[in-house]
Amino acid sequence: MKKQIRLNAFDMNCIGHLSAGLWTHPRDRAQTYKDLQYWLELAKLLERGKFDAIFLADVLGVYDVYRGSADAALQQCTQVPVNDPVLVIPAMATVTEHLGFGVTCTLSFEPPYQFSRRMSTLDHLTKGRAGWNIVTGYLDSAARGTGLDAQTAHDLRYEIADEYMEVVYKLWEGSWEDDAVVRDRENGVFARPEKVHKIHHQGKYYRVEAIHLCEPSPQRTPLLYQAGASTRGREFAGKHAECVFLGGSKRIVASSVADIRHHAARCGRNPAEVLMFAGITVIVGRTEQEARAKYADYARYVNPDGVFALLSGWSGIDFSHYRMEDPVTYVKNDAVNSMVEAFTTKSERPWTVRELVEYGGLGGPTPKIIGSPTQVADQLIGWIEETDVDGFNLSYVVTPESFTDFIELVIPELQERGVYKLDYSPGTLREKLYGPGRARLDRSHPAATYRHADPHNRGSSIRDCRSRCSEHGSDVTRL
Amino acid sequence: MKKQIRLNAFDMNCIGHLSAGLWTHPRDRAQTYKDLQYWLELAKLLERGKFDAIFLADVLGVYDVYRGSADAALQQCTQVPVNDPVLVIPAMATVTEHLGFGVTCTLSFEPPYQFSRRMSTLDHLTKGRAGWNIVTGYLDSAARGTGLDAQTAHDLRYEIADEYMEVVYKLWEGSWEDDAVVRDRENGVFARPEKVHKIHHQGKYYRVEAIHLCEPSPQRTPLLYQAGASTRGREFAGKHAECVFLGGSKRIVASSVADIRHHAARCGRNPAEVLMFAGITVIVGRTEQEARAKYADYARYVNPDGVFALLSGWSGIDFSHYRMEDPVTYVKNDAVNSMVEAFTTKSERPWTVRELVEYGGLGGPTPKIIGSPTQVADQLIGWIEETDVDGFNLSYVVTPESFTDFIELVIPELQERGVYKLDYSPGTLREKLYGPGRARLDRSHPAATYRHADPHNRGSSIRDCRSRCSEHGSDVTRL
Repeated sequence: MKKQIRLNAFDMNCIGHLSAGLWTHPRDRAQTYKDLQYWLELAKLLERGKFDAIFLADVLGVYDVYRGSADAALQQCTQVPVNDPVLVIPAMATVTEHLGFGVTCTLSFEPPYQFSRRMSTLDHLTKGRAGWNIVTGYLDSAARGTGLDAQTAHDLRYEIADEYMEVVYKLWEGSWEDDAVVRDRENGVFARPEKVHKIHHQGKYYRVEAIHLCEPSPQRTPLLYQAGASTRGREFAGKHAECVFLGGSKRIVASSVADIRHHAARCGRNPAEVLMFAGITVIVGRTEQEARAKYADYARYVNPDGVFALLSGWSGIDFSHYRMEDPVTYVKNDAVNSMVEAFTTKSERPWTVRELVEYGGLGGPTPKIIGSPTQVADQLIGWIEETDVDGFNLSYVVTPESFTDFIELVIPELQERGVYKLDYSPGTLREKLYGPGRARLDRSHPAATYRHADPHNRGSSIRDCRSRCSEHGSDVTRL
Repeated sequence: MKKQIRLNAFDMNCIGHLSAGLWTHPRDRAQTYKDLQYWLELAKLLERGKFDAIFLADVLGVYDVYRGSADAALQQCTQVPVNDPVLVIPAMATVTEHLGFGVTCTLSFEPPYQFSRRMSTLDHLTKGRAGWNIVTGYLDSAARGTGLDAQTAHDLRYEIADEYMEVVYKLWEGSWEDDAVVRDRENGVFARPEKVHKIHHQGKYYRVEAIHLCEPSPQRTPLLYQAGASTRGREFAGKHAECVFLGGSKRIVASSVADIRHHAARCGRNPAEVLMFAGITVIVGRTEQEARAKYADYARYVNPDGVFALLSGWSGIDFSHYRMEDPVTYVKNDAVNSMVEAFTTKSERPWTVRELVEYGGLGGPTPKIIGSPTQVADQLIGWIEETDVDGFNLSYVVTPESFTDFIELVIPELQERGVYKLDYSPGTLREKLYGPGRARLDRSHPAATYRHADPHNRGSSIRDCRSRCSEHGSDVTRL
């Protein structure tokens, strides 16, 4: 069987996610993000298209680098206002059976004890369809909202994140044994206390002495997403992530894929099972001409200030200091450079700021695929072959139109070519991605070392993996 | 018109909320708390009964005082496992139009910047039906789960809570002006930045320099519940709460009601508008005989260990040191004493521990009303008249049976007597309780002093209320 393309819909609980200005497009429904109806309809649509998951971005803070204020972001509703993404998921779960839910939650502002409960609850309520995009936060404005003067330094954030993961793994995997809950009404025994363990974590950043508050959920640890593109981020992904969201051109993505698979292998994991998703924007019509006309129509709604708010926030440089006709080489720093590469795969000459804006305003800093269903399918398959990604995170330009178009025009084409599922597999989100019997994290994953009562975790392989992948001391009562 | 009785259904995202052992009753469905279906059906049922709200308790920690361990709580699923209560609300909102949602969230473990966003999101998604039960946490085990050795001292917790409230009020009421969001597609202006204000809070416990991340929700500040019974707790309630949940006998409740109304008046609030809810358990049958038989049937399922887990956790004394026939005077401390009074309104002789267990096992430390529909209605009306409460928080013994019985048998009787609404009022939860035009907090509430652009908040009355009710310095950009 050919490699099956995996698909996430990329959205955010806000109006202007990545297509700045497109909220003014007459067919865009992003403004109804506050109504459950938007999310219910979107979830049903995506399940009809057999999307693996909806992947919800989040940001705790505002984009205030451009012109030194959040004014442009506010005027253009560029990722602000932004509501809590977790809360729309239980509603979407009521109208779907298979769609997965990947949600971005920063670990910087909530203790692991409380956060782990929220995720377990989500996994229970969705019957094992919860995924967590691990984020350490990147905006200074979020830090200032929380009483800090600026973000914790980048590498230190990852060190803290590593320990945070260790704590939540202990809670999710190590606290309740599989046979702890017996629900024996006859004898009046719900759980066997000797099978429920307090975790004792005394680390550098966290101290936790507690049992996990939730009984084991279908997946225990939610499916783990990660999106860090830095060197340290890729190491982190190789160790922890089951699904990785990558941005950039084919060249950049291919290199990241190889690097993360390498890190995964070093941690003793199967590198092929770290599923890679490239961020991409598709504008499809029944013909190429129709698609190009759609692109031109959308492009009229791009708002430069909104795009600059995002670009400045991401890169840390204030684009108001440049003119629209400036070449991008003139403004480039590492972040901008990588973004420019992201925008196009065939940049022969330096782009102007104006070109950057138009292209980046449609679906954000993602490569664009514009064309007929067969053209789009060709290009998606080309991506898979050339970069070794497993699938795509689809940005929208106009919602839900971008998803509807993709489902009606591209999905049948992919199915016909045998590269897209005709129906969902049964089971939890993790089982749908990895196959039957895989509801829980694979035993090669570092989280598995905190499990109880798994005979495979009693031998030397655990200790090996521990010394290989875990920096902090750990023990679980009665292990 | 006669005073209308207000009703909340009291539940928790767990199995054994207050009726320890009743999870073994063949008709109890609490074990399905992990399934959205339980919550959807319950919400529809309560809306059919025109309940004002479902009030969700929560606890972050386990009951581990009894026998010095959490074993009894685990074995009897006594408030453990316990899932996140917030997440079931968006699902319930999809199948209801009027039911309010009061949810218990502790402010001890999450910064106000992040928490305020979650509540605003909830208020948006429910179209103004969100309520927050303000809790500062009371279990040491929760503190240990979060890296502390024990709870912060009681009065200090309230001091911190007061400042926390100030911060969230600034975010909810002061950050976005009413006319900040214009949604002008034609001119490409979503919000007017000059109407969105950064709050500058430099307090003793919190520093926040940020705009609120959400546009104004229907109620802005969610409806505020509070349940603290201590002297400091009642002061806090008088200042902040719109709805207060009270436990205890008629005598205790009446005294708390008077005291809290007194504190409210001192803060310049209308004391009659602080709505008081007494915790109560009703067992109703078509006849008194049927109700008594139901009580006897339920009582057979009470589990003493489960009851002791709760009683010991609440009182801080380990009940395993006493025998079932010991008189309660022998074990009493202030907390137990108040609980014993709560159990019965006519305690002439000291209760034995055994009696305490049986009575407290059915709906927890709440007075019981057992009888026919007319008897129950008589007693509820008697409560209203004698204690000046506005309504009740109904505990269940068996779920959803206890609610179904109440709705089928008691509600029609109350409606017939003109003391219960025949239909919901329109609007948000706050409007349903206080009338049209009252979607936002009343201007006499301390939160209102942080508002912009309200001409009523520009005069001397603000400063008065500030000096009267607010301990911390405060200012909002561009005020």
